[in-house]
Amino acid sequence: MNTISGSVCAPKGFRASGIHCGIRKNKIKKDLALIVSDVKASAAAVYTTNLVYGAPIKVTRAHIADGYAQAMVCNSGNANTCNANGVEIAEKMSTLTADALGIDKEDIIIASTGVIGQPLDITPIANGMNELVNSLSKDGSDAAEAIMTTDTKPKEIAINFEIGGKTCTMGGIAKGSGMIHPNMATMLVFITTDCAITPQMLQKALSTDIANTFNMVSIDGDTSTNDMVSVMANGMAENDIIDKDGKDFDEFMKALNTICTHLCRCIAGDGEGATKLLECSVVGAKDEKCAKTVAKSVICSSLVKAAMFGSDANWGRILCAIGYSGADVDTEKIDVSFKSKAGEIPVCKNGSGIEFSEEKAKEILLCDEIYILINLNSGEFSSTAWGCDLTYDYVKINGDYRT
Amino acid sequence: MNTISGSVCAPKGFRASGIHCGIRKNKIKKDLALIVSDVKASAAAVYTTNLVYGAPIKVTRAHIADGYAQAMVCNSGNANTCNANGVEIAEKMSTLTADALGIDKEDIIIASTGVIGQPLDITPIANGMNELVNSLSKDGSDAAEAIMTTDTKPKEIAINFEIGGKTCTMGGIAKGSGMIHPNMATMLVFITTDCAITPQMLQKALSTDIANTFNMVSIDGDTSTNDMVSVMANGMAENDIIDKDGKDFDEFMKALNTICTHLCRCIAGDGEGATKLLECSVVGAKDEKCAKTVAKSVICSSLVKAAMFGSDANWGRILCAIGYSGADVDTEKIDVSFKSKAGEIPVCKNGSGIEFSEEKAKEILLCDEIYILINLNSGEFSSTAWGCDLTYDYVKINGDYRT
Repeated sequence: MNTISGSVCAPKGFRASGIHCGIRKNKIKKDLALIVSDVKASAAAVYTTNLVYGAPIKVTRAHIADGYAQAMVCNSGNANTCNANGVEIAEKMSTLTADALGIDKEDIIIASTGVIGQPLDITPIANGMNELVNSLSKDGSDAAEAIMTTDTKPKEIAINFEIGGKTCTMGGIAKGSGMIHPNMATMLVFITTDCAITPQMLQKALSTDIANTFNMVSIDGDTSTNDMVSVMANGMAENDIIDKDGKDFDEFMKALNTICTHLCRCIAGDGEGATKLLECSVVGAKDEKCAKTVAKSVICSSLVKAAMFGSDANWGRILCAIGYSGADVDTEKIDVSFKSKAGEIPVCKNGSGIEFSEEKAKEILLCDEIYILINLNSGEFSSTAWGCDLTYDYVKINGDYRT
Repeated sequence: MNTISGSVCAPKGFRASGIHCGIRKNKIKKDLALIVSDVKASAAAVYTTNLVYGAPIKVTRAHIADGYAQAMVCNSGNANTCNANGVEIAEKMSTLTADALGIDKEDIIIASTGVIGQPLDITPIANGMNELVNSLSKDGSDAAEAIMTTDTKPKEIAINFEIGGKTCTMGGIAKGSGMIHPNMATMLVFITTDCAITPQMLQKALSTDIANTFNMVSIDGDTSTNDMVSVMANGMAENDIIDKDGKDFDEFMKALNTICTHLCRCIAGDGEGATKLLECSVVGAKDEKCAKTVAKSVICSSLVKAAMFGSDANWGRILCAIGYSGADVDTEKIDVSFKSKAGEIPVCKNGSGIEFSEEKAKEILLCDEIYILINLNSGEFSSTAWGCDLTYDYVKINGDYRT
C-alpha cells in the first residue's frame, strides 16, 4: 500500500469539480462540490445519530437504499436543516444534478453543511449547475475546497493497494472543523475507489471502520446534524468483485482504514481554532470498550484541551477525565506520559505524580502534534482517539459564527 | 421563608474563620477555612462520582459514617489528590484541627481544592491552626473567601424558615469556577443549620435535593475529583427533631432547595471566565429524565456557550444539542425562545426557524442573565439547568492553571 498524490479523482473513472455558485456571500469561497463516477458504483454511507438531522441525510438514505450511486453533490454555507421545506430543496438539488449529468436522481448522494435553520435558496445552485458539470476534471482539489466551512485547509488523500493482483486506488476528501463529536458517523467525508466490491461488503467495511476512526475524533463534543461519511466503489480496477469476508476484504479494510485514519488526523488537527493535534493512545485496558471510553474522555475534556493549548503538563486533568469517563479502571495502576517529536516524558506512575522536568515537558508540549500515552496496566486492549486543543480562536469563531 | 444576611454562621451555634496559612504562594489569598458547631451535629454529604477522588473524600466518608460531625475544615491551593501519601496528610489535617478545637477527629469533615497531583505539605496547616481557631467568629465571610480557587467572588446565602413554630436558620457557602459538571455530588458546598433533624433524614433531604440543583450545573463538562456538598444540622433551634417524612420535612426540603438553588446560580454565573449566567428551562417533556437530559445537554454544548458569549441567537445549535442529547423527543414539536431582562423572543417553532428581529435578539442576549426556554410540547414534565458562556478567559485561565 502506498500513498499517491490526489484524492477522490485518483481512482479510475472519477471526476470532480468545485465552484462558487453564490450560497456564500464571500465570492472567493467555493460553495458547491461534485464528484461523479463514469459508471454506477456500489455505495455505502454512515450518518449522524443526532435526532435532529439535515434534510440531505433523509434524501441520501433513500437514494442509496438500493446500494448504488453515481455522483455526490455537496454545498457549504447552509446545512439545509431545521427548515420546513428542507427535503423539497434537497430533492430539487438532486434533480438538478442528475439532469445536468444525464443520470437518475436516485443515484445522487447529497450533503449540505453550514448554518442550521436558515432556508436554503435553490436559485444559486440551479444557476451554477452547468458550470459545476462543465468544470468536471481529474483534479479533486476544487471539490475538497468547496466542502470546507471553517476549515483552514483542504483534507485530501489517495493510496494504491492491491486486490487479487490488480492495482486498486482509493481517495478521500473531508471537511471538519467544529460541531464534531461523531456518534456512529460524522463530518462530511467522501471516499471513492475503483475497487470492485458489493454494496453489502462496502457497507460492512465502512460501518466497521468508523468505530475506530471517525467515531474516535472529537473537536468540541457537539455531534452535528448533517455529518456523513460516504463511499462509492465503481469497480473499474477490474479486480474480482469482493463479495465475502477473506483476504481481499481484509486488504480493502486496510486501505479504507488508511484513508479514514489520515482524514481523522487532518480533521482533528484542523479543528476550529486548533493550534495542536492531540492523539490519545490507551493501552493495557481490560476490554476494547474501556480503552475507547478512556481515550475519548481525555480527548473531550475542555480542561485537558486548554492545558495542551497552554503547553502545561497538568496531567491531573487527564487522571480526572479518566476517572469520570465511566470506564471501569483501577486508578492506582494508571501511567501517563506526554510525547512529541521533541521527546517523551513520564509524568504519572501508578496513579500518582512522579518528579519530572517541567522544562522538558514544556518543550515537548510546545510541538504541534502531541501524543498523550496512557497505560491502564490491566489488560491487552488498546484504542486511539484524536482531538485538538481549546483556544481563544475556538471561542472567537463560535462566538459569532453566523455573521 | 426569608433571606437574611450572612451565611454559615447565621444559624445558632456556628462560628467560622478563614486565614492565609501559606499553602498558596500569594499571601493575599486566604487558603484555610474552618466552620465549627458548638455542639455535635447531624451530618450528611454527597461526593463526586469520579473514580479518581481526593484523599479528603475518603477520610470524610469514614468520619461521618456514624451520621455526626462538629467541624468542617477546608484548604484551597492543593486538591490533595493523586498523591501517594494523600490519606495520611488528610488524617493529619483532621487531627490537627480536632486537637486545636478539643473535639474528636472523627467529627471532622475535611475538604481540599486546587491542583491535582502535587504533594500537600502539612507544615503551613500545622503552623496556621492556632490562628485559624483563635479567629473563629460569627462572621462566615472569611471562610467563604478561603475556599475560593478561580472564583471571582465568594458565594454565600442564609435564610430563616419555620418548623413546628420554631424559627430555624440555614446558611451556605460554596466554591465553584472550573472542573464543574456534577454527577451525584459536586463542587465544595458547606451548609449549616440549627434545625433539629436526624442524620438519616438529613442525608435523604440532601441526596434528593442535589438531583435538581447541583447535578444540574455544568461549567465545562469536567467532573472534579474533590467535590462535595456537606451539611451540619446542630438542632439548636430547638424544634421537635425531624425524624420522618411529613410537613416538617417538606419545609426543611424547601429551605434546603432555596439555599442550593441560590448557590447553583452563583456557581454557574461565576464559572471560569464566564460573562453570563445561562439558565435553560425545559417544559413539556414526556418524563422527568427527558427534561433533565435536554436541559443539561443544551447547557453543556460548547457551541451554544460560545454563541451566548457572542450574543448570537444561533438557535440551530440548541436544536442540535437537543438532538444528540439521547433524550427521546419529537424534533418537529420543539419551540425555543430567548429571554432576559430586556425581553423575550421566540426563534424556533415546531423544530423550524421562524422570522425574528436579529436586533431585538441581540439586545436580549447582551444581558448577563440569559434564559433559554425550550418547550418540547410532549408532556407535563420540566427541568432547569444552569451554566455559563464559553469565553476567551476560560481558555486563558485553564491554559496555564498551575503557574
